[in-house]
Amino acid sequence: MIQTPYLLFLGDAQDGLAAKVAQGIKDWRPENAAGQFRLPDCNTSVGLPDLTLEEAKAAGARTLVIGVANRGGYISNAWKEVLVEALRMGFDLASGLHNLLRDEDELVAAARVNGRTLHDVRVPSVAYPIANGVKRSGKRCLAVGTDCSVGKMYTGLAMDAEMRKRGMKSTFRPTGQTGILITGGGVPLDAVIADFLAGAVEYLTPDNDDDHWDHIEGQGSLFHVSYSGVTMALVHGGQPDALVLCHEPTRAHMRGLPDYQQPALEQLRDTALHMARVANPACEVAGISVNTQHLSEAEAVAYLSDVEARMGLPTVDPFRHGAGRLVDALAQI
Amino acid sequence: MIQTPYLLFLGDAQDGLAAKVAQGIKDWRPENAAGQFRLPDCNTSVGLPDLTLEEAKAAGARTLVIGVANRGGYISNAWKEVLVEALRMGFDLASGLHNLLRDEDELVAAARVNGRTLHDVRVPSVAYPIANGVKRSGKRCLAVGTDCSVGKMYTGLAMDAEMRKRGMKSTFRPTGQTGILITGGGVPLDAVIADFLAGAVEYLTPDNDDDHWDHIEGQGSLFHVSYSGVTMALVHGGQPDALVLCHEPTRAHMRGLPDYQQPALEQLRDTALHMARVANPACEVAGISVNTQHLSEAEAVAYLSDVEARMGLPTVDPFRHGAGRLVDALAQI
Repeated sequence: MIQTPYLLFLGDAQDGLAAKVAQGIKDWRPENAAGQFRLPDCNTSVGLPDLTLEEAKAAGARTLVIGVANRGGYISNAWKEVLVEALRMGFDLASGLHNLLRDEDELVAAARVNGRTLHDVRVPSVAYPIANGVKRSGKRCLAVGTDCSVGKMYTGLAMDAEMRKRGMKSTFRPTGQTGILITGGGVPLDAVIADFLAGAVEYLTPDNDDDHWDHIEGQGSLFHVSYSGVTMALVHGGQPDALVLCHEPTRAHMRGLPDYQQPALEQLRDTALHMARVANPACEVAGISVNTQHLSEAEAVAYLSDVEARMGLPTVDPFRHGAGRLVDALAQI
Repeated sequence: MIQTPYLLFLGDAQDGLAAKVAQGIKDWRPENAAGQFRLPDCNTSVGLPDLTLEEAKAAGARTLVIGVANRGGYISNAWKEVLVEALRMGFDLASGLHNLLRDEDELVAAARVNGRTLHDVRVPSVAYPIANGVKRSGKRCLAVGTDCSVGKMYTGLAMDAEMRKRGMKSTFRPTGQTGILITGGGVPLDAVIADFLAGAVEYLTPDNDDDHWDHIEGQGSLFHVSYSGVTMALVHGGQPDALVLCHEPTRAHMRGLPDYQQPALEQLRDTALHMARVANPACEVAGISVNTQHLSEAEAVAYLSDVEARMGLPTVDPFRHGAGRLVDALAQI
């Protein structure tokens, strides 16, 4: 686990998209974010107070989180100066960057001298077991998509937030670097060795209270040929009691695969449920989450209503209208 | 690729099961095996001439292959003496053991001094790409199982052997350490990082002549919750034109999973075909391969005949009756 609260490092981010990890932390776990740190040429903000390292330390921040995508794929000298100073002052560092903190000699040396930890959340830090398939207590919901990047993480975070607002027992279980940085822990599933994939999901979602819900962050799609193995491991390792189908209705083709079309929601429902029932015969499809960002409000409302009538399942865009109806459905399971 | 021919190291193997890798090489690629090397306390043989290192060298052997499972999970001093001497004499070493050659300092040093290669075939040696799903030329057959360890490798090797006997263009494509040692190359799929699983299968089965068949070694099962992610990546990365369903009819439960029952062959057929058609809409189920080792000949014949009538697909045990009818079916595709 990464120590909270964080100081969010925005570096020289030029726009909100570059700072989306920091934005995610601020949106979903504001209690984890003491403030933001920007370099002079940073052109965006996540709306938190700007703190110096000294001010963040005084405010109790324990980890400097790199909340920005870096340009050119390397950690610049301007960044490194701040990161080394943060280590010297007693902060841990956490990063989801493709190029690892642990590959930077200066950071490794400074961490060692100061007894600090470098968290590269893209890389597994645990020797996960092989899945044993034993039925676990507690309830689990898995978001499965017609495609990659259709809003599975957002849907899970929104259902978790709604449950906690209602006083229900709920945990979001991240399987990718952004989710791990938001919550401070999880499994970077796409970096796990094949034999341990489903075991890593079991590890992530252990026995729990009977009325506790894990919201497991979905990855890939059973219909995306590049990543379907990861999705399959989530469906079996997660033993979901409930599936939420996630969809983006304006895609011309599967993400990154020009020759492949998205499946219909009916096909996703049937396939995902069939496979999920191998691990949990009681699994049900609870609802549908549609990412309508490329539709107008009127188009979105019409589309959601059409899908709901056709599929007979509560159908929402949690970004526009909240996850309340999905949580209502889960509460019936 | 591992240099052939091999000298097969049986070490101190106490029975045929311990020497099954060596036996597989001798059975399927006798042209790869110059002879066997046994320590004084070895109690089994794969029926090849016993050669000293000098004799093997003179016979043209280029790699000493550890064709035996080691006891206690470590490489003993008695083994190491032979392995170091083999490196000194100019042999490469190849091993599918869980404990790696490259973790043994003496072997690493001897390989370096003598300019030899240590092949640990459990560990990927290639940075596999992410799968791109682009349609490849040539034909591919994938063995899929109701469970793990039901004869998928045997079935693929038998179909490949039968095709080559008939003068057809055919290659066996190994995805596990035994298959890799038998043929000299392949992908150790269970050790590949999740993001690259399907890409590794694409890499293993590249474009080929239109009338060439790849027989892709299956792994796991879509219905085995511990390993289904690996199987899914084979189904999508392999783009199979044909599936062969593999089954062992006497299992009380899924291998290693006492709470899980095997699916019916009908369920495997429908599920595997549905998923395979995502990557290759023309995919067909060509036949069924049953491992009848726990049935008498009469029981086996009756079982095969029942399944064939029920499923309407050629159904054989290739160990008992050869893979000819499966190849007949593939030749129609």
